[in-house]
Amino acid sequence: MREVAQLAGVAMSSVSRVLSGHPDVSVGMQSRVLAAVAELGYQPDLLAQSLRRQETMTIGFAVGDISNQLFAEIVASAETTLRTAGYSMLLTNSEASAELDAAHIRLLAQRRVDGIILSVGDEQNPDTLAALERLDVPVVILDRDVPMPGAVNVFSDHRRGMRQAVAHLLDLGHRDIAMINGQTLRPARERRAALEACYEERGLPPTYRFVDGTFSVEFGARAAGDLLSQEHPPTAIIAGGNQLMLGSLKVLRARGLRLGRDISFVGCDDIPVSELYDPPIAVVRRDTAAMGHSAAELMLALLAGEPVEDVTLPSEFVARASCGPVAKT
Amino acid sequence: MREVAQLAGVAMSSVSRVLSGHPDVSVGMQSRVLAAVAELGYQPDLLAQSLRRQETMTIGFAVGDISNQLFAEIVASAETTLRTAGYSMLLTNSEASAELDAAHIRLLAQRRVDGIILSVGDEQNPDTLAALERLDVPVVILDRDVPMPGAVNVFSDHRRGMRQAVAHLLDLGHRDIAMINGQTLRPARERRAALEACYEERGLPPTYRFVDGTFSVEFGARAAGDLLSQEHPPTAIIAGGNQLMLGSLKVLRARGLRLGRDISFVGCDDIPVSELYDPPIAVVRRDTAAMGHSAAELMLALLAGEPVEDVTLPSEFVARASCGPVAKT
Repeated sequence: MREVAQLAGVAMSSVSRVLSGHPDVSVGMQSRVLAAVAELGYQPDLLAQSLRRQETMTIGFAVGDISNQLFAEIVASAETTLRTAGYSMLLTNSEASAELDAAHIRLLAQRRVDGIILSVGDEQNPDTLAALERLDVPVVILDRDVPMPGAVNVFSDHRRGMRQAVAHLLDLGHRDIAMINGQTLRPARERRAALEACYEERGLPPTYRFVDGTFSVEFGARAAGDLLSQEHPPTAIIAGGNQLMLGSLKVLRARGLRLGRDISFVGCDDIPVSELYDPPIAVVRRDTAAMGHSAAELMLALLAGEPVEDVTLPSEFVARASCGPVAKT
Repeated sequence: MREVAQLAGVAMSSVSRVLSGHPDVSVGMQSRVLAAVAELGYQPDLLAQSLRRQETMTIGFAVGDISNQLFAEIVASAETTLRTAGYSMLLTNSEASAELDAAHIRLLAQRRVDGIILSVGDEQNPDTLAALERLDVPVVILDRDVPMPGAVNVFSDHRRGMRQAVAHLLDLGHRDIAMINGQTLRPARERRAALEACYEERGLPPTYRFVDGTFSVEFGARAAGDLLSQEHPPTAIIAGGNQLMLGSLKVLRARGLRLGRDISFVGCDDIPVSELYDPPIAVVRRDTAAMGHSAAELMLALLAGEPVEDVTLPSEFVARASCGPVAKT
């Protein structure tokens, strides 16, 4: 460490600050120290440091399904922000199984992470809540209504974009709108409430319908198939999630339905397929990079003992040709 | 720990084996111990255990771009396999920047991970090679030709699927085939070699062309745009990667070209858009879950001191309507 300080021409305390990821370090100082570290091949033993300081400089991220594009983008963005601040990320993937949430929270606690960012698959699971209660590190929760005092939240304002989407469909004459949703989680409740509010505000009778299941490609396909097989299929379908959108599109396509002409369709999350589908798919979009970055920033503020508040990030409707006037029957 | 052993009705040594992720534990034993652990809320201090054992039960995964669907699926699969064996995963994301590879390898070493799985963005970068040389833990490399003695590799057999793809295009009468590739990495070299070999074996003059850049959506769009603007555009385009495919499709679509009629197109990796595009996109597919699982299995074998060999997983061509006979001009 002394050699590093000499080579970089800085004090040993400065080397220590850079290597511990202290926030109060100038960019010039950081690059000089890291260059000297690289040249000397100096490898501080972070594990021994951790024990001395009672910090591991590690944040746990318990994610629902990393192979879901939405989560992958959130994790990528959070990892960048955390790493820049000197933290590493321990990732657990619950494979979209709520049963694994509690096990992963306990695992991360055993790993003595300094904080946990999480997105659970069931907001009321007693096992999950018990595991959360036992934590003594800061927790940032992603877009869930988990009754955990002290946790800080990054919410998406799903209502905003969904209200724009439903208003667009109502303006096009649709009254028989079906919404496919996953399990009862905050995003599903918010999207549902937005749809109901739009009808109510216009004094329209509640001629919408909901199909609730799980946030999966398989359920999206099954739900869309069921809706289309009914005696009076809806004139518009809203898929409340990108996996539900993918499943629904498979079925709509297999039935040879032209979106925007035979039936209207709105998806959630602006994944590559929405722009490249023919016709392009109207979606309620959110900024996944901002979600990951905000979650990481909140965690860093909590670790620094700064006062923090919940963050709510906007969503917005992107109108595309998958929505059109009600088809003549 | 004594309480856990009593409640589970097993010896304390068995509890220790289960909690340390020892491979020689029956499923029944594991579930009894974990149930007792959950009921008692017992949290072994893994950090103190690590120092005693000189193991951290942590594997580092240095990935190129976690927001790329391909890597996200590989990571998800590896995490499941590692976690089942008692290991946690430290994830670093180099944001597709080769400059960050060496920094991440050093970071993971400082974190005293028990092993590293990695996919680098530049196989010859001296800084990366120096960082790898200094490692004293097992290394599993994903689909790269990195000159590192002792590392074990999980390769994709890109040639197999690409030869099938090129043969299909040649059978359809295409002779002017353009291949868009990312930077010089093993997958790009293998795909290129497959194309060249197909022409040579049929005794055809080398009337193909290559466009090399980076594995990004932006480069895919630029390369496709350049190809289409040439005086004699190719009659078929192969995009060597899923990001390159997405970029190319944006341009092909914007130009109003009907795939399989106006121009033929082959992508790589069977991401959702390939099946849902109109017409569906022919791709060279690989099993991402098998790649992640194999990498994790190799790492576990290395940690157990078992003899291991490189693994090569197949790729296969999936013919779809994006390929058709050469368009009449």
